Amino acid sequence: VVIVGAGFGGLTAARALRRAPVDVLLVDRDNYHLFTPLLYQVASALLSPGEIARPVRSLLRGFRNATFRLANVESIDVAGRRVVTDRGEVDYHYLVVAAGSATNFFGNRSLAEQALPLKELGEGLALRNWVLSQFEASRWETDPVRRRRLLTIAVVGGGPTGVELAGAFSELIRIVLRRDLPDLDLNEVRVVLLEGSDTLLAAFDSGLRQAADAALRRKRVEIWYQALVRSVDGGLVELADGRRLEATTVVWTAGVRAAEVAGMLTESPGSQGRVRVRPTLQLPAHPEVFVIGDAAAVEVRGELLPMLIPVAMQEAKHCARSIHRLLMEREPEAFQYRDPGIMATIGRNAAVAQLGPVRLAGFLGWLMWLGVHLVNVISFRSRLVVLVNWAWDYLFYDRPVRLIVEARAPGAGRSTPPPASRRRRAG
Amino acid sequence: VVIVGAGFGGLTAARALRRAPVDVLLVDRDNYHLFTPLLYQVASALLSPGEIARPVRSLLRGFRNATFRLANVESIDVAGRRVVTDRGEVDYHYLVVAAGSATNFFGNRSLAEQALPLKELGEGLALRNWVLSQFEASRWETDPVRRRRLLTIAVVGGGPTGVELAGAFSELIRIVLRRDLPDLDLNEVRVVLLEGSDTLLAAFDSGLRQAADAALRRKRVEIWYQALVRSVDGGLVELADGRRLEATTVVWTAGVRAAEVAGMLTESPGSQGRVRVRPTLQLPAHPEVFVIGDAAAVEVRGELLPMLIPVAMQEAKHCARSIHRLLMEREPEAFQYRDPGIMATIGRNAAVAQLGPVRLAGFLGWLMWLGVHLVNVISFRSRLVVLVNWAWDYLFYDRPVRLIVEARAPGAGRSTPPPASRRRRAG
Repeated sequence: VVIVGAGFGGLTAARALRRAPVDVLLVDRDNYHLFTPLLYQVASALLSPGEIARPVRSLLRGFRNATFRLANVESIDVAGRRVVTDRGEVDYHYLVVAAGSATNFFGNRSLAEQALPLKELGEGLALRNWVLSQFEASRWETDPVRRRRLLTIAVVGGGPTGVELAGAFSELIRIVLRRDLPDLDLNEVRVVLLEGSDTLLAAFDSGLRQAADAALRRKRVEIWYQALVRSVDGGLVELADGRRLEATTVVWTAGVRAAEVAGMLTESPGSQGRVRVRPTLQLPAHPEVFVIGDAAAVEVRGELLPMLIPVAMQEAKHCARSIHRLLMEREPEAFQYRDPGIMATIGRNAAVAQLGPVRLAGFLGWLMWLGVHLVNVISFRSRLVVLVNWAWDYLFYDRPVRLIVEARAPGAGRSTPPPASRRRRAG
Repeated sequence: VVIVGAGFGGLTAARALRRAPVDVLLVDRDNYHLFTPLLYQVASALLSPGEIARPVRSLLRGFRNATFRLANVESIDVAGRRVVTDRGEVDYHYLVVAAGSATNFFGNRSLAEQALPLKELGEGLALRNWVLSQFEASRWETDPVRRRRLLTIAVVGGGPTGVELAGAFSELIRIVLRRDLPDLDLNEVRVVLLEGSDTLLAAFDSGLRQAADAALRRKRVEIWYQALVRSVDGGLVELADGRRLEATTVVWTAGVRAAEVAGMLTESPGSQGRVRVRPTLQLPAHPEVFVIGDAAAVEVRGELLPMLIPVAMQEAKHCARSIHRLLMEREPEAFQYRDPGIMATIGRNAAVAQLGPVRLAGFLGWLMWLGVHLVNVISFRSRLVVLVNWAWDYLFYDRPVRLIVEARAPGAGRSTPPPASRRRRAG
């Protein structure tokens, strides 16, 4: 069994197959599993990369039948049952594609070139470096208009990532950077959340949506509704209705699509480039290929399942059971989804949670969010370090990881890296 | 007072001036202070960047008269008493140049392009990413010669950094990667330390030098003496005497010179590009300019002081006292150095220490090393996290930070970054 992707789907599938009479080979282009719900905390300088990512190899140590290979998948030869990577080829009997999703700029070139995405660990680090560099640069700027532009952060997209990020940036600035930069005038700083529709967190109940709106405003986040971004150019954001915002930092969280690997499996993808699969998660013409998680378009009772971690993990377990059944020459069953609920945080002390009939907002929601996420951060050691960091932050209002550092030799883009060169690759 | 450089010299000078009737402006091209003695632990995946670096701004918080600015110094107009940076200009009454040192490839182009330096935090991260990528790539390689080349690490330079790094890599491989990569054949792995003279750790007594040699050999590090590197090309290291070594990882720790800023102060630098100063640390023609730390060539009793942290810190304190005296219209005194001793570690359980009449090797030396470094890691929180990491490593033989991650957008040099493109900038 070859599994493509070591995210929540791929890892759960490997774990669910650990006692099956098969050899499992997990392939990913990164050597780590990323705990994506906390990625915004790396971007806002609260957590270190090592606290939300774990080497895949150490996670697989307990499984005797699983190995890992680092590689980029370049194509999938479904007829020949072979995965082609930049490092070599791998044959399979069963293939599980759990390649996840990627940022979708909807073909908007100025966005792809000038807005910062936030889907991967390296992007979280780049965003942290970028925002801190803008604030440093503002200390040299004598022109107030240009200074305000450096001190304005535009977050595009009012989904959970955008809401969490806007709240976290606001706290980073108002609690920590204000002390670090004694000459910072808070009236010159803005965090603006741009949402295309007329509501935040569309997946939540209206009471919780209003609670999120109010919590963000209390944290001095400006919220612009009906704000569809038309272009981003040299620090100027233009909206479809003509509104304009000057900001050197523009974060794009408003679009996702299935990862590129999904396109290698189908010529007529579903919405967001996802692969249409049978209710059993199998590829229609190739029952030996399963697609799970964000890469799969799975309909349950006429509705497409959302791109969420619980969906991916439940699909992974179902897929492992189906492989078991196929080995015993029985037919796979249709996948059923049990909705465990959804949550989003809005910074220290505030979150919204919608779990079955339960609706929590404010501090109680935040405690629930903290508990669920601490339990899920994968190793005990990580949990301990994350807890120390959070406790420190909570007690001392300090963010320990405000470093502007890139993994590269000296001389190259030391202080403020030019946005274009970094982002051109994002398209 | 403008201070260039937020290393041990610059920060100590700012601290020593905190009650002086002056305004202090600290300028650095990085926004953090780096605890350089532990940089090799980032390179060998034991510590995270946030554990050995602290934002300069948070370190300055207690000082009312000190501010920080992030910038690259481009020139110094000594006559006009002005520092020119890439962000703007700053005038000074007194200037303290504490710019530190940089890697010296001695004009060897193949080294500058293909060997990895280890002086800065970004370089430590790049080295970690590089070594882990080589081991990942080796799992795909079916040709044993090419596989051995991927699994060979050459460390050039038998000073403290080279010795510490070779020991740490050997442990990373033999204790951790062996478990992560179950199909790894340890007979294919080599860590080779290349030393140009016939001894390691030249600054230490001969008994300790022999102890270091023996400790490294016990850790299966090969030591080549009289090994002067002539060229590095595409995985082949050639020595001046014709010996050859195949290794895709070549780390260069065998040369330092004063940072570029030093060259802006003098047309006839001393050895290693350092600035010749008076015994009072003042620039001969400009008593308002002090040069301290690695950038300064200070002679005490006919001998040039070495590039060491205690030298920089003592010079910084002396320089602050001298500025005090100048403000009171008294003459600065000559600098005197009190040698606190030197230490180097050779991995878990072994180190050598030479402190006045005391000579420690092995486990006792290691405990001494651990204590001194834990006390000196700058904040309490860092100390706590570092201790948790070390204790974890010691108890479970695990290294938590084995991530291959770069702060950049997706698609760019994902798995194995091409060495040339990264290293060309190092020259």
